[in-house]
Amino acid sequence: MPLLTIFLGGDTGAWAVDRIDPITGPGLPYVPRVAAMEDGGWRELPSSVWALRGVVSHERYTTGVEHEALVRRQASLGRPAASRAALIPITKSPAWWMLSSDGRRAIFEETSHHIAIGMEYLPAIARRLHHSRDLGEPFDFLTWFEFAPEHEEAFEELVLRLRASEEWSYVVREVDIRLEKKA
Amino acid sequence: MPLLTIFLGGDTGAWAVDRIDPITGPGLPYVPRVAAMEDGGWRELPSSVWALRGVVSHERYTTGVEHEALVRRQASLGRPAASRAALIPITKSPAWWMLSSDGRRAIFEETSHHIAIGMEYLPAIARRLHHSRDLGEPFDFLTWFEFAPEHEEAFEELVLRLRASEEWSYVVREVDIRLEKKA
Repeated sequence: MPLLTIFLGGDTGAWAVDRIDPITGPGLPYVPRVAAMEDGGWRELPSSVWALRGVVSHERYTTGVEHEALVRRQASLGRPAASRAALIPITKSPAWWMLSSDGRRAIFEETSHHIAIGMEYLPAIARRLHHSRDLGEPFDFLTWFEFAPEHEEAFEELVLRLRASEEWSYVVREVDIRLEKKA
Repeated sequence: MPLLTIFLGGDTGAWAVDRIDPITGPGLPYVPRVAAMEDGGWRELPSSVWALRGVVSHERYTTGVEHEALVRRQASLGRPAASRAALIPITKSPAWWMLSSDGRRAIFEETSHHIAIGMEYLPAIARRLHHSRDLGEPFDFLTWFEFAPEHEEAFEELVLRLRASEEWSYVVREVDIRLEKKA
């Protein structure tokens, strides 16, 4: 089943904010903490400066072969050593969403090698994608990454490679939120 | 932008209910009327027996070639002669959603010819798909069809052909709501 997740920016939460950088378009206000809350905690939401919602849902562009390769290599969230995280909300342009599904897939993987690039950084960089567009949210996706401090440099490289891809020419808003686990 | 739509089953709305048939799994309670409300009318929602929400969003499996063919043939909603409608909420099994995207596409079109079959009934049968799964709704999709009374037989044929497809072996819940325009 799809898993609704909400990221709350405010004074509470297990993740201390290192920095919030606007990469493309408007950023988000600085907050000291981010809380990631999954499905069901809605009645007890602490107050927050911003709240971003997304759904962990079925895969959209991954082929069966890619899926198998990802499952073999990927790491789960919550590893004790993975004390660094990045929350990167992204919005793509209307031109992206008006592409046909094979057009989006061609740019996503055949041209931009999104899956293949991400695969190079597994299992060091764990990743979870949250879909937000159909929820009427300001961002289309919320991507969440977790890694150990010694993989921070590798993570920077991953982010820069993706931003240099053709796929990223369709990104009209991107905010880069870096976090450190506290509780 | 995605368009949030809510279908309200109750005592009000432009569509009079002819019948509500459970096809697979639990049905929905009978109501005399259905109202289809788009984005923004949320504060004024009339009371209802049931409410189904879905989002008109980007295409998921259609190729560029198929998209062009669909655009050339398809009809818009709201044609004065199209006084009949069908609202068919559908839920697919976890096995469907665990398929990779190419696996779903292969069953959807290469094996079940969903797009090709639908195309045969254009422009007589206008159609709009609403995505509900990521909203946490009980159904994955709400499909809405509009047609003139003289195309009712063609519509029955379309529905039966799709239900006989391999894709439909993944349908675990389906309700067939037939409607007539009143106001």
